[in-house]
Amino acid sequence: MNYKVIEQADVDFLRSVCGVDRVFMGEAINEDFSHDELAGIHRFPDVLVEVISTDEVQKIMKYAHDHCIPVTPRGQGTGLVGAAVPIHGGILMNLSRMNRILELDEENLTLTVEPGVLLMEISKFVEERDFFYPPDPGEKSATIAGNINTNAGGMRAVKYGVTRDYVRALEVVLPSGEVMELGGKVVKNSSGYALKDLIIGSEGTLGIVTKAVLRLLPLPKKAMSLLVPFPDLETAIDTVPKIIKSKSIPTAIEYMIRDVILASETFLGKAFPDNSADAYLLLTFDGNTQAEIEAAYEKVAHICLEAGALDVLISNTQERQESIWKARGAFLEAIKASTTEMDECDVVVPRNKIAEFVKFAETLQKRFDIRIKSFGHAGDGNLHIYVLRDELPEAVWRDKLGQVFECMYAKSRELGGKVSGEHGIGYAKLPYLQEAMGAAGMSLLRGIKQAFDPKWILNPGKVVA
Amino acid sequence: MNYKVIEQADVDFLRSVCGVDRVFMGEAINEDFSHDELAGIHRFPDVLVEVISTDEVQKIMKYAHDHCIPVTPRGQGTGLVGAAVPIHGGILMNLSRMNRILELDEENLTLTVEPGVLLMEISKFVEERDFFYPPDPGEKSATIAGNINTNAGGMRAVKYGVTRDYVRALEVVLPSGEVMELGGKVVKNSSGYALKDLIIGSEGTLGIVTKAVLRLLPLPKKAMSLLVPFPDLETAIDTVPKIIKSKSIPTAIEYMIRDVILASETFLGKAFPDNSADAYLLLTFDGNTQAEIEAAYEKVAHICLEAGALDVLISNTQERQESIWKARGAFLEAIKASTTEMDECDVVVPRNKIAEFVKFAETLQKRFDIRIKSFGHAGDGNLHIYVLRDELPEAVWRDKLGQVFECMYAKSRELGGKVSGEHGIGYAKLPYLQEAMGAAGMSLLRGIKQAFDPKWILNPGKVVA
Repeated sequence: MNYKVIEQADVDFLRSVCGVDRVFMGEAINEDFSHDELAGIHRFPDVLVEVISTDEVQKIMKYAHDHCIPVTPRGQGTGLVGAAVPIHGGILMNLSRMNRILELDEENLTLTVEPGVLLMEISKFVEERDFFYPPDPGEKSATIAGNINTNAGGMRAVKYGVTRDYVRALEVVLPSGEVMELGGKVVKNSSGYALKDLIIGSEGTLGIVTKAVLRLLPLPKKAMSLLVPFPDLETAIDTVPKIIKSKSIPTAIEYMIRDVILASETFLGKAFPDNSADAYLLLTFDGNTQAEIEAAYEKVAHICLEAGALDVLISNTQERQESIWKARGAFLEAIKASTTEMDECDVVVPRNKIAEFVKFAETLQKRFDIRIKSFGHAGDGNLHIYVLRDELPEAVWRDKLGQVFECMYAKSRELGGKVSGEHGIGYAKLPYLQEAMGAAGMSLLRGIKQAFDPKWILNPGKVVA
Repeated sequence: MNYKVIEQADVDFLRSVCGVDRVFMGEAINEDFSHDELAGIHRFPDVLVEVISTDEVQKIMKYAHDHCIPVTPRGQGTGLVGAAVPIHGGILMNLSRMNRILELDEENLTLTVEPGVLLMEISKFVEERDFFYPPDPGEKSATIAGNINTNAGGMRAVKYGVTRDYVRALEVVLPSGEVMELGGKVVKNSSGYALKDLIIGSEGTLGIVTKAVLRLLPLPKKAMSLLVPFPDLETAIDTVPKIIKSKSIPTAIEYMIRDVILASETFLGKAFPDNSADAYLLLTFDGNTQAEIEAAYEKVAHICLEAGALDVLISNTQERQESIWKARGAFLEAIKASTTEMDECDVVVPRNKIAEFVKFAETLQKRFDIRIKSFGHAGDGNLHIYVLRDELPEAVWRDKLGQVFECMYAKSRELGGKVSGEHGIGYAKLPYLQEAMGAAGMSLLRGIKQAFDPKWILNPGKVVA
């Protein structure tokens, strides 16, 4: 596409909409806005605008459409695949100040929020009122619109599903500037194609989410966690399909290895309840009665011990559970702090193929002589595998990373897996999506993009190119 | 579109694919294939083919694409909006003989089925093996692909959600004849736009579902129902938001009026457990322990009595529950048998607006001097409202029906509702979808249709025109 280069007139227009205080150029743009959390892709926008209303988003989008200027929406920038990096320059639209919780509707069990509300604010708000928003990604300072745009899953997907399952309605500004309401405060809907579902997971390439109506559940009254040490990772992960098959479905099943736990202890400056074993499963159970939870965890504890677990550590105080899950939430940061640069593979495979995938990924460490660390959602087949640069020179790093990734994505396809479980495609994973989808699939994606964004101005270069 | 008229050469091609025994023309086509369950729209196909494999579907679709022949996929024809009626003639593709259950995968909790498997076959198969497929529409003889294509909801949506929430993967033949696998045996997925979700609810206009991987849950160990008589419908329905607000979420909350119960008694030749009251709520609770269920239903029973219920009839034997739910399942047939012709409105509104909508629909009965009967899913806001022709002359019937529908769909929009909760748009509800979506929305739908089906040959005239 031939995009218009930003000129003074465009900046003047943006200032007429947002005022001078919320339009930034040149050195006034903080370096943070040139990359996301993994920082593998860099580009400054020509102009950064902070929006505070749908009306502003709508006006800017219409202007950009009329003038063919690329617009990249951004929340907290916690993404890992470059989706919020303005790789074609143009306007970077920061929505993180649209961060009000607008309504709790107890009769329809919904919460209406602006796009920039943080995940941790939502859980705090609803849990204080005895409600529950199940999606629980590790990154609690992500915005809800970021979660919606990647269809984030998190720890509790084993039992509760993913973000998609908890979005009742969206207000979306289309690339043309038109505002649409998709879905509603309704439980069922068969009224035309699933536009709301199409926006979910579209990484800001089809429309800008300016409001969301989330589905809430009643807060489960009881929860407890099991930390289960195993002699090695293989034994730990081989246990997962046995747990699923037992039909006592935990809320979450995470796996972790000692290395990563040690890194998190260093990072947080706090001891983990146990670090003596090579590998662990961390499980949570929730429910409304103690009896219900106990029945489930006793069965699962038994399965773990049968399968070779060294012990089963029960954690039933709020405090102890929080300390464990806080450590789990810090794994990404801890690994990041242990190296110079890293990239990640977020494949999802069928649950009974996790062991095979993790073992395969382990072999790549030796084969390519590079550090690879993983942790992840063993219960839902979604792995987070980090390839660490350490002291490798740029060219060697790029080369090795490319080869390791090729191997991992090919293995995932072989096992019936998908490129991304929850972090999305963005810019960084585009080649792997193309390999997975094939020509016919990519042609459908392009056709959909074309229907929403005929000038290809909204977050161009992401998901489809 | 200018579609090719079917000639002998086309029939010869179809016979070369399916053999002579599965290709039908002229009087060999049973009258059933010219309409669906409500029979408001009639058209015979030029040729009817019975397919038994993806390979056959693929070959026929490619031929139809090359020759620009319309193809309408059909299952059991239990739809209510004309989606399976070949309104442009051409090929009617009957998929109901692709009806094998292919695999139960206990480690991934999935069931893989062909499109023509009936809903009742799925529930029987999985429940015998201690698994649970939650979607539970009243029409148990619908095919699973029919359910997927309308995103059917059914009774248990209050607690468990709709068909969309239980489809992990689809094999789909595109209008070009290309076969695609969408989704996978994976719990999470953020790999490009949500094509699987787009096919779900697309009423056979974007692709032909030839295989589905369904998500199963462990079968809840206990279930019980409450039949709650109320002095009038208003009191019954006003109770629903109070139940939802109590956070003791039942599996199902249905409402019914005495008239409809009497019609079902006549239709089934079997007495309903109680028919003394004007209106009823029927609730189910399920769970894994008696204690859990009892706590929930006692709370809800108390709320009902506080809200004016005449009594609370507990039904905890399998036999009694089945008799009540069988009667509930026969409501549509019973109403249909009580008149000459009927049409239905399947709007869904926010749960706290149901009472207002039902009261409004009641007033239309007098205002237009026409019989209107309703029942439906009070717990999820999805109403099934039937307008009965009785002895009205054709012109009067069409006129009154049109006016009643206009009023109902306008009211639904006013209340934040949607055109269809679960029966879809098909051909019959197209004008109401257009009103609801507006020009920008319909343009997106057309763009999506264009991306999948550039020649507009697959089920043309449905959902988008």
